[in-house]
Amino acid sequence: MIKEIQLEKELTKPLYLQLYSQIKGLIEEGKLQAHDKLPSIRKLAKGLQVNTVTVVNGYNVLEEEGLVYKKVGSGTFIMPNEQIKDKIIPGEGQADDSELKKEDEEVINFGTVAPSPSLFPIQAFKRLLNQVLDRDQGYAFGYQKSQGYLPLRESIAQYVENYQIEIGAEQIQIVSGAQQGLDVLAKTFLDYGDTVFVERPTYPGAISAFKSRKVELIDIPLEKDGLNLEELEVLLKRYKPKFLYLMPNFQNPTGYSYSLKKKKELLKLADQYELLIIEDDCVSDLNYLGQPRKSLKALDTEDKVVYLKSFSKLYMPGLRLAFMIIPSSYCEDILVSKYLSDIFTDGLVQRVLDLYLRREDWQEQLNCLKEKYSQRYQVMITALKEYLPPNVDYIEPEGGLNLWLKLPQQVSATKLHKVLRKDGVNIAPGALFYHTKPHKNRIRLSIAAVTCQQIEEGIQQLGQRIREELKEEGDYRFDESMMPLV
Amino acid sequence: MIKEIQLEKELTKPLYLQLYSQIKGLIEEGKLQAHDKLPSIRKLAKGLQVNTVTVVNGYNVLEEEGLVYKKVGSGTFIMPNEQIKDKIIPGEGQADDSELKKEDEEVINFGTVAPSPSLFPIQAFKRLLNQVLDRDQGYAFGYQKSQGYLPLRESIAQYVENYQIEIGAEQIQIVSGAQQGLDVLAKTFLDYGDTVFVERPTYPGAISAFKSRKVELIDIPLEKDGLNLEELEVLLKRYKPKFLYLMPNFQNPTGYSYSLKKKKELLKLADQYELLIIEDDCVSDLNYLGQPRKSLKALDTEDKVVYLKSFSKLYMPGLRLAFMIIPSSYCEDILVSKYLSDIFTDGLVQRVLDLYLRREDWQEQLNCLKEKYSQRYQVMITALKEYLPPNVDYIEPEGGLNLWLKLPQQVSATKLHKVLRKDGVNIAPGALFYHTKPHKNRIRLSIAAVTCQQIEEGIQQLGQRIREELKEEGDYRFDESMMPLV
Repeated sequence: MIKEIQLEKELTKPLYLQLYSQIKGLIEEGKLQAHDKLPSIRKLAKGLQVNTVTVVNGYNVLEEEGLVYKKVGSGTFIMPNEQIKDKIIPGEGQADDSELKKEDEEVINFGTVAPSPSLFPIQAFKRLLNQVLDRDQGYAFGYQKSQGYLPLRESIAQYVENYQIEIGAEQIQIVSGAQQGLDVLAKTFLDYGDTVFVERPTYPGAISAFKSRKVELIDIPLEKDGLNLEELEVLLKRYKPKFLYLMPNFQNPTGYSYSLKKKKELLKLADQYELLIIEDDCVSDLNYLGQPRKSLKALDTEDKVVYLKSFSKLYMPGLRLAFMIIPSSYCEDILVSKYLSDIFTDGLVQRVLDLYLRREDWQEQLNCLKEKYSQRYQVMITALKEYLPPNVDYIEPEGGLNLWLKLPQQVSATKLHKVLRKDGVNIAPGALFYHTKPHKNRIRLSIAAVTCQQIEEGIQQLGQRIREELKEEGDYRFDESMMPLV
Repeated sequence: MIKEIQLEKELTKPLYLQLYSQIKGLIEEGKLQAHDKLPSIRKLAKGLQVNTVTVVNGYNVLEEEGLVYKKVGSGTFIMPNEQIKDKIIPGEGQADDSELKKEDEEVINFGTVAPSPSLFPIQAFKRLLNQVLDRDQGYAFGYQKSQGYLPLRESIAQYVENYQIEIGAEQIQIVSGAQQGLDVLAKTFLDYGDTVFVERPTYPGAISAFKSRKVELIDIPLEKDGLNLEELEVLLKRYKPKFLYLMPNFQNPTGYSYSLKKKKELLKLADQYELLIIEDDCVSDLNYLGQPRKSLKALDTEDKVVYLKSFSKLYMPGLRLAFMIIPSSYCEDILVSKYLSDIFTDGLVQRVLDLYLRREDWQEQLNCLKEKYSQRYQVMITALKEYLPPNVDYIEPEGGLNLWLKLPQQVSATKLHKVLRKDGVNIAPGALFYHTKPHKNRIRLSIAAVTCQQIEEGIQQLGQRIREELKEEGDYRFDESMMPLV
């Protein structure tokens, strides 16, 4: 193997990345096969006349990418193929979206809502980052206030005017991502023995954050136009929940949006029963058809809604930055919970996002993103119509990143998930989104990390596998050993 | 006022920062006085022929710096002097420490352990940041693994060999700062009704993180050479604590370090009583005299110690990055708690720190930092000897950032704190570091954010005020309205 590798010290590409790419190439060409042992670090370093650190780093990237595995004391080995396909392998991150890299194409990943990095304005981010460093120097690295960098809170207050939300910077709390927002809210409001209402199904990260406070979760069926309000009212008469957590627009996992009528009725109930609502607004911006969806917060005249919004689906996937709009009476309690969670959110990214929002290319970025997602969405809908058997039930959400499929009763989502993984197609089995009594025949398909061509191929494959399952009518049990989800 | 401001559009310094500096200058010269109203945004923008955004930004920086305050509906006003002095005003962040900026000198701040940004290698950080961006592009911004970026975990595994700790990358969990580490540990181990042992006194952020899980905190007296082990053993016979939280080297707030003998005895007790120990190692690197202090983890042969270390005191104060070394049996539970706290830690800073550790200028940075702190420490000790009355009791910790003073019984730390604030000197009253029955005559002095000259002046002032209090022998009550501390 060593003979096939040629590193060029003159290239600007670092040696360890050259090594990584070449070994990866050998795997792809089949010259290195499952469980083949790679040369020892010392041997390869000697053979290539490079520092051992170079080899260590190259092997590390291969491991990080899931292409090799290490066994303590015996060496580094090639990962078997099907396991390689299980991994979500990020592209090398060209800012140009026109050509997704080969790595992205190895697996057709309907299973994640984490968008391809290639969708995002990395060059612009880098430019802003350097502007912030030049402008603020040490400021950007010092201790920050727990509530968040004031100029950013002010730009956000201005930005949410786009959603018809009128608030001041003093009601905004910056958090390190939406998950931290949920955790901070859980710390603030929940205690041993409390009750929380959630949608059924809902986002598993929320379930975990609330359960970590040892509360009782009660789920309320989510219908195609929003929560079942009769059932909500029955439960409100029986329980005094600390809050109701929901995603009223393009929900995760279902893609469902509440009708305006239900939104208004819900707020009436909230007022009547003194119910606090946590509104998680992940992607209400991504409407591909019709008018933008109104948030509950925009309709909330009685200050009953905590609004939580992340930038990771819309600006940068890895940005640990989200914000909450908080009814004034809770600001201080939430600030304390934020403080004891991580004291403050990184000042540098706060400054970059502030600059970004102020420069007003936000709308442009959003439009560009919407256009790309909208294309994928259209291709998805067309493919579903073309390739799925007619007894698969779903609605067209007209926006967002997710579609929620109800398969015929006899098809197990978990088995389908397993079978498709072998084909190089990843889906999210619906059971993940229920905290009790999961429906076994639901799946979530996301368009965040797939190209149009992948959608076409993947859905065709999905349709075929469902038909096969229908023929087999096999009886499989629910399997909990499933991949983690974001 | 408008006439006195001249913005130069040719300068590279942004207009809003020019505006900020000039208004700040007018305040310093006394031309703008407490409660003076600044011109309206529209008026000033018109007068200076700049965009209103420029004025808004300039005013924001002034507010962020605590130099002005806003009243909704009526405008922006100059903050009264004594309130300005309360603020910790960061320097404009020159990487060169030789001349601390005037802002830093306005208040002599013994009250914070957050180091002056000027102590840190900002230019190097910026260079590394750009190298990471060039090298990794989109990788740096994508979703990261919850356990942390593998190459960083490997560099840390190598780095802790300096502390005689031998572990693999798989035992390392990256967290977004030490406070998050405490929060993650609390989530993992603590539940309603559990018991936790802590040192008395201890770090208030730990008290809050543990209390948030509704546990019973039991504190054990910390002596000058470590925890009172007799008392610990008595309590271990009575309780089954989930863990014992401690800082064995240069403790916060006391600066005390455990003797090697006590460290070993403590580990024996841990083994005997199956006690899990959380070791918070903030600044064991900062020994100014004698040998480096051994960590408990280095002595821990039975895997009874979770080791937590932040980089904010040693690398960049605002960096939200720390790591934990975890006994293998707990790795998975802790990973789940990390996941539900914020899913993952920012990938960009993980990559920068990784590069930094690999480039090996770490030791140089550390030596440079130690030299500066060591100077301050020497000046501090000399000043304490010279200016304090002989009945003030303290030990010389020989390292770290803190000194812990026991004042004569009749002197109230809280009153002293108030009196000194008016003099422009800030100290941390000891009561903050006890969760029950605080001693009222202890204070913590930190050398993290003061120059040598400030130490000289500040301690002289402190000595004088203590003498005055001794004369007065006034009777003051404990006042809880105290500043938040880091």
